[in-house]
Amino acid sequence: MRVYELIRRKRDGEELTPEEVRHLVEGFVKGEVPDYQMAAFLMAVYFRGLNEREVLALTEAMIESGERLDLTHMPDIVDKHSTGGVGDKTTLVLVPLVAACGARVLKMSGRGLGFTGGTIDKLESFPGIRTELSLDEMLALVQAHAACIGEQTVELTSADKRIYALRDVTSTVDSIPLVAASVMSKKLAAGAQGLVLDVKCGRGAFAKDLPTAEALARAMVDLARRSGRRAVALITAMDQPLGFAVGNALEVKEAIAALRGEGPADLMELVLALGSEMLVLAGKAPDIEQAGWQLAQALDSGAALDKLREIVEAQGGDPRACDDPSLLPAAGYVEEIRAPRAGFVHAIDAYAVGSLSMGLGAGRAVQGGSLDLGVGLELFAKVGQRVETGEVVGRVHAAQKDAARQAARAAAEALTIRETPAAKPPLILGRVPTV
Amino acid sequence: MRVYELIRRKRDGEELTPEEVRHLVEGFVKGEVPDYQMAAFLMAVYFRGLNEREVLALTEAMIESGERLDLTHMPDIVDKHSTGGVGDKTTLVLVPLVAACGARVLKMSGRGLGFTGGTIDKLESFPGIRTELSLDEMLALVQAHAACIGEQTVELTSADKRIYALRDVTSTVDSIPLVAASVMSKKLAAGAQGLVLDVKCGRGAFAKDLPTAEALARAMVDLARRSGRRAVALITAMDQPLGFAVGNALEVKEAIAALRGEGPADLMELVLALGSEMLVLAGKAPDIEQAGWQLAQALDSGAALDKLREIVEAQGGDPRACDDPSLLPAAGYVEEIRAPRAGFVHAIDAYAVGSLSMGLGAGRAVQGGSLDLGVGLELFAKVGQRVETGEVVGRVHAAQKDAARQAARAAAEALTIRETPAAKPPLILGRVPTV
Repeated sequence: MRVYELIRRKRDGEELTPEEVRHLVEGFVKGEVPDYQMAAFLMAVYFRGLNEREVLALTEAMIESGERLDLTHMPDIVDKHSTGGVGDKTTLVLVPLVAACGARVLKMSGRGLGFTGGTIDKLESFPGIRTELSLDEMLALVQAHAACIGEQTVELTSADKRIYALRDVTSTVDSIPLVAASVMSKKLAAGAQGLVLDVKCGRGAFAKDLPTAEALARAMVDLARRSGRRAVALITAMDQPLGFAVGNALEVKEAIAALRGEGPADLMELVLALGSEMLVLAGKAPDIEQAGWQLAQALDSGAALDKLREIVEAQGGDPRACDDPSLLPAAGYVEEIRAPRAGFVHAIDAYAVGSLSMGLGAGRAVQGGSLDLGVGLELFAKVGQRVETGEVVGRVHAAQKDAARQAARAAAEALTIRETPAAKPPLILGRVPTV
Repeated sequence: MRVYELIRRKRDGEELTPEEVRHLVEGFVKGEVPDYQMAAFLMAVYFRGLNEREVLALTEAMIESGERLDLTHMPDIVDKHSTGGVGDKTTLVLVPLVAACGARVLKMSGRGLGFTGGTIDKLESFPGIRTELSLDEMLALVQAHAACIGEQTVELTSADKRIYALRDVTSTVDSIPLVAASVMSKKLAAGAQGLVLDVKCGRGAFAKDLPTAEALARAMVDLARRSGRRAVALITAMDQPLGFAVGNALEVKEAIAALRGEGPADLMELVLALGSEMLVLAGKAPDIEQAGWQLAQALDSGAALDKLREIVEAQGGDPRACDDPSLLPAAGYVEEIRAPRAGFVHAIDAYAVGSLSMGLGAGRAVQGGSLDLGVGLELFAKVGQRVETGEVVGRVHAAQKDAARQAARAAAEALTIRETPAAKPPLILGRVPTV
């Protein structure tokens, strides 16, 4: 099997057999297929795509390259994945919320890179919390508390990791089949039988438009089905940041508010939609409507926030921070963001907001960089809302006064304000269930 | 200038500036741009192409990466390039022929790889001949004898050499702008002011159809024009081998016959067409018609063959081989190829014939491999001709009897013979002059 021929055939739009795809991935991991051949293959895939059989073969070859968890005997364990967005703290809300409703969640998360934060970084806002957990520890925590959030320390899919690193430097990240295989290989290796996917769509996401988001959602749900799992994808808007807060401890505070039922409307809507799907997949609710009612009950009764306290404590963190936010990291300077003119908010540039937050120290530019967990932004204005000149529309939390002022001015410019009214855009744009 | 961004922009069909193209090529030569990024870029170019400005910038960056000859003060020196074909011995005929008519030719040639032979390999059939010549030696030979054929020993375009090696293993060879830049960078660096290009078209060539051949011819002629040179491209058929002989010494014998005016009709037609263009470009004939007459005169008078003797002798070879073919290498066994059935020859598979010749030892599978100069095939039948069952249509020349017999059977199968008459196909399919 000559690699040259495999590249040529993909280049010419021909289908590769599962054996040929596996040969490429295995050879690459072993160092027998050099980087430059894999790079040429990935660029050919960018242009020609992969069909359902090929993307399944790629996903399986990546799963076979690492460790995997077998959770088939625990069908009530559900997992959740988001393709990533600015201000997306849903995991911090969803894990305790659905666990409070009887589902179980073994959540492996990552650290942030670039302008999107990582759940593990955010969680470390709780003083003392341990996130580096072995697989056995995670399983024990799930048995005892129905939930845990740990850092992915074992290498689940080493081929994916190596291929992603190559895509990252060869402009081959933005490919639907490659994104689908990368995400799903990790999720399938992590073992949960039920999986809810939050596919972001909009200016701040990989999928800039609905057809792209739908194609990605279908590819991922299809991979789950072909692997004997159940999955549902929701396509959700990512044109403006989700909720108000962007920054690690700021997002934790917002997540705690959401677990009291007091989070921003968009965050609450998304959490209830994703959580309902998770409860149904876990077999803990007969349908979406009933699931929504159960979730609302858990928020109202305080059971959801109780579960967060329980998780934090079980992982060695200080649960009092759930009730006393002053125990969470905070920035030294807070500067108000004021609307530069009166009118309606037509757009909030999520990319700009994410970059500002990263610039303040909330995100890392390079792998392994350290973070300032207290800094970030809050933006209370949302698209569709009317603001007056000089009205406080948000706050910058920074370590230095100058940085706070500069970021406040820049954040105000991330809002597009016009005189004409703007409609509040829909948050949930589509749903792709397992067929 | 981030290489990642340059790859992405080419991937997305955007134009790169000349500075950006140069940055990529220079960085690659220096080792600052890694192989895998260049491979991804080349695959993006395969799909998106390069416009005229980009291909010129690529060509110039490759020229700048190596040595180059300045022949602007010798406008009567012309060069010739063929995109390569099975049985193509035109250079061996053209160099002495046009030199006998007053033009000068400083021909740098290469060795063969794969199933197409190299002029230098063929030339070494002359006992004692030296082909490794310094640039000064070549210039001195051209001054004294109007012609020389030497191996390209100085590195004219080291970037092209490195990029070609990468294309060769990443399935990015078959790209019109990359082929055009590769060929033309070498030819422009070699310095001749006038250049005749033989662009092969057909099953045995890179350009399988006329539109592809025309696009390639136009790209190359355009590069010459933008570099202040004059060029003419002829598009010529490469569906069946050119002439009868395939194999080093066998082709030399055929070239000698052609210099007597006694070569196969297709070879004579091509040599006269290319040679006429060369004489006009060199300013030695006012038009193609007059040039053709001058060439015919040189063949008839013996001046052309005299010039070959002179060149061979000047380069240390034994010129008596031009009159006594027994002085050329010969194979131990000759086996006749017989037509397996009666009918008309509809096709001769040039690729199969080239592969057979290579299998006999006339071509090398890997760089640096040694050759058996005496072996090869002769195929007297041409497309359109009628043959009878058992008629001798060719000969195999081999080192072993078994190999000869096997090759003779296989060669017979390379002919497609049908009962219906077949038209003799045209040889010259198009002409692209400098505008």
